[in-house]
Amino acid sequence: MTVDTLRSVTTEDLHQQGARIAAAARVIARAPDAQRVDALLRAAANLRAVSGDVLVANQADLAEGAQSGLSQTAMDRLRLDEARIEAMAAGLETVAGLADPVGEVVSESVRPNGLRVRRVRTPLGVVGVIYENRPNVTSDVAGLCIRSANAAFLRGSSTALRSNVAVVETLRDGLRGAGLPADAVILVEETSHERAIEFMRMRGTIDVLVPRGGPSLIASMLEHATVPVVLDGDGNCHVYVDARADLDMAVSIIRNAKTQRPGVCNAMESLLVHQDVAGEVLARLEATMGEVRLLGDARAQELSEAVLPATDEDFRTEFLDLIASVAVVDSLDEAMDHIARYGSGHSEAIVTEDPLAAERFLREVDAAAVLHNASTRFVDGAELGLGAEVGISTQKLHARGPMGLEALTSVRWVIQGEGNIRT
Amino acid sequence: MTVDTLRSVTTEDLHQQGARIAAAARVIARAPDAQRVDALLRAAANLRAVSGDVLVANQADLAEGAQSGLSQTAMDRLRLDEARIEAMAAGLETVAGLADPVGEVVSESVRPNGLRVRRVRTPLGVVGVIYENRPNVTSDVAGLCIRSANAAFLRGSSTALRSNVAVVETLRDGLRGAGLPADAVILVEETSHERAIEFMRMRGTIDVLVPRGGPSLIASMLEHATVPVVLDGDGNCHVYVDARADLDMAVSIIRNAKTQRPGVCNAMESLLVHQDVAGEVLARLEATMGEVRLLGDARAQELSEAVLPATDEDFRTEFLDLIASVAVVDSLDEAMDHIARYGSGHSEAIVTEDPLAAERFLREVDAAAVLHNASTRFVDGAELGLGAEVGISTQKLHARGPMGLEALTSVRWVIQGEGNIRT
Repeated sequence: MTVDTLRSVTTEDLHQQGARIAAAARVIARAPDAQRVDALLRAAANLRAVSGDVLVANQADLAEGAQSGLSQTAMDRLRLDEARIEAMAAGLETVAGLADPVGEVVSESVRPNGLRVRRVRTPLGVVGVIYENRPNVTSDVAGLCIRSANAAFLRGSSTALRSNVAVVETLRDGLRGAGLPADAVILVEETSHERAIEFMRMRGTIDVLVPRGGPSLIASMLEHATVPVVLDGDGNCHVYVDARADLDMAVSIIRNAKTQRPGVCNAMESLLVHQDVAGEVLARLEATMGEVRLLGDARAQELSEAVLPATDEDFRTEFLDLIASVAVVDSLDEAMDHIARYGSGHSEAIVTEDPLAAERFLREVDAAAVLHNASTRFVDGAELGLGAEVGISTQKLHARGPMGLEALTSVRWVIQGEGNIRT
Repeated sequence: MTVDTLRSVTTEDLHQQGARIAAAARVIARAPDAQRVDALLRAAANLRAVSGDVLVANQADLAEGAQSGLSQTAMDRLRLDEARIEAMAAGLETVAGLADPVGEVVSESVRPNGLRVRRVRTPLGVVGVIYENRPNVTSDVAGLCIRSANAAFLRGSSTALRSNVAVVETLRDGLRGAGLPADAVILVEETSHERAIEFMRMRGTIDVLVPRGGPSLIASMLEHATVPVVLDGDGNCHVYVDARADLDMAVSIIRNAKTQRPGVCNAMESLLVHQDVAGEVLARLEATMGEVRLLGDARAQELSEAVLPATDEDFRTEFLDLIASVAVVDSLDEAMDHIARYGSGHSEAIVTEDPLAAERFLREVDAAAVLHNASTRFVDGAELGLGAEVGISTQKLHARGPMGLEALTSVRWVIQGEGNIRT
């Protein structure tokens, strides 16, 4: 196959697309495991085969992005190269190798009246995802949806449109090759704000919407969405260095959580440090992490000249940059209160050698992920063994943290009797 | 204790109540199992001790209901007597006896890098429930919330206000007696529509909202809610009698599903019958189920004089009465297509002796519960072993079908390392 990625954008009515994908969802829901695996392996092969076309499309997106003044971070997220395309193809193969979640019996019992009751995993149906620049999200999300017998209704950003069209074609071709409807993956090519709102209101067509984006997308979603939502929200992630922390370990974790990839949601945005070790920790950070701007409270400023004044708003901010807020606390309780007040419910870490402090932190901090003596950067679908992720949920309902195949299923009750009636 | 149930209604600001319940939710989330069990047993004892006061309150609600012309069904749902209060108290004791869901390790693994990764059940926080007449919902829902270390924010109907105030006091007193904050159960006493909308928009305070009500509540929720919702929607439940059904069993199941309690969501509303057995089934229903009005398609009308004409709308209707729609179908596929078109995703049953037909129906019909040779009336928390239920979810996200303790939890990631950083 070749991909004509520079063709004009389709302006097909969203509701026509909705009807097509809903029909395809009913077909893929019943497709055997082997057929879905075949579709993914074909898509991976297609992606490799047409990588040149995908790169041409991506170059066009990049050129337009440069012209329209896209930020350096956004340009970096948008950029594809042979290695990134290979990683996308390999990702599809990884997902193909994961166990089929559909049909899994979650629980099984026989009631006193003889009824046999099972709870069985089933696909959600049509999964809608609204996302930004990164074209690899297109293949990751569509791959997980196909693996779990769902249809993927994708609304990427306008800046990545040509790249996304090219990637989606490889997936649709993979489906076709496996004898499945290509319409199990559909990209919304008209990326206006109005169309996005229309998308959020496709109740009855879209079974779950995963908005992956910034505060304005989330606000719009809260105002307009009528479909059920699993929110991939901000990560205002904290690392708390306890009085009894191993300070070498603490500095290593802080460095990693803040600087290894500052533009992602599981990076550390805020450092909390116990007063007993605050001076030492700040001195070491000053010496070894000079590239990071630290914005701190009065006590942190007193302890280190490298710390600039922080506003209350700074403690709420997901910087996504080489910036961190810093607060000195008197106790574990104060640290946990700070997290309860400012945290976004994403990932929160404690560094300590005190098992009781660790236990309390892990039990009491209310976030999708809590970590002890590990970098927040591990809160990621691939790192935690999910293969890939549709997003990282910061809400409590349905799924929390990295969402893999299981998050793309629901659990039905299957009840078998022998003529049982209720008395 | 005694309950002053006839006092004037509190008009405390909803957001003050929200602040109180959020604080109480943080306390109960950390409360040990035994303390929550103690609160429930005390509440059950209280309910029995003050049953006279509760009945006085209920009488006042009933008198006002009669005056304002409440329907017979609504009056029946509202009415309490000693037996119903005893059932409510016993229900609290049953829930107290269920296993604590909090802290359950759902999965556990060690990653190749040595990280220990667990997924652990945790309370949701503040559970908001909007519901109608039945005062037993008040104790059922609050009991399940306390058992699962959540706080219950209850907004019952104005018609049941005095009864609900009386029941809630027994629960709050149980909490106090067990050393837990009474504010873990709060009833919204101002029951205006405006206040209900305000309630649906308490994002950041209410962690999950369960609306239990009719189409107008659901429409209002779709328009206004900003908190995550698990929908307890309508039940347009079908029974399909296959060509190879045992007809004695079929008639018994139809009778039970339609007439045992017609006003509930798991009652049969629509009968689908295969053409090969339609004449016989309709003749038997005519002979034995005369109290039920049958509204059928042309083929059903042809086969039985008892069948009156049905409109397309009748096939979409949850009658909650001794009425059923009837359609004759040519095949299992036609039956499943009909259910896909008209069903509400609640409970769908097949009656057949053909294992392949049963298997296809159980696998392919997309509903919270699918049943083979059993009455739809079994789709109920108590019948399926959950002890009680917060509602019956007809959505796919988070929970599907009867919602017990597990539906009141989320699952967090707990990650333990030894200084691990990501490379």
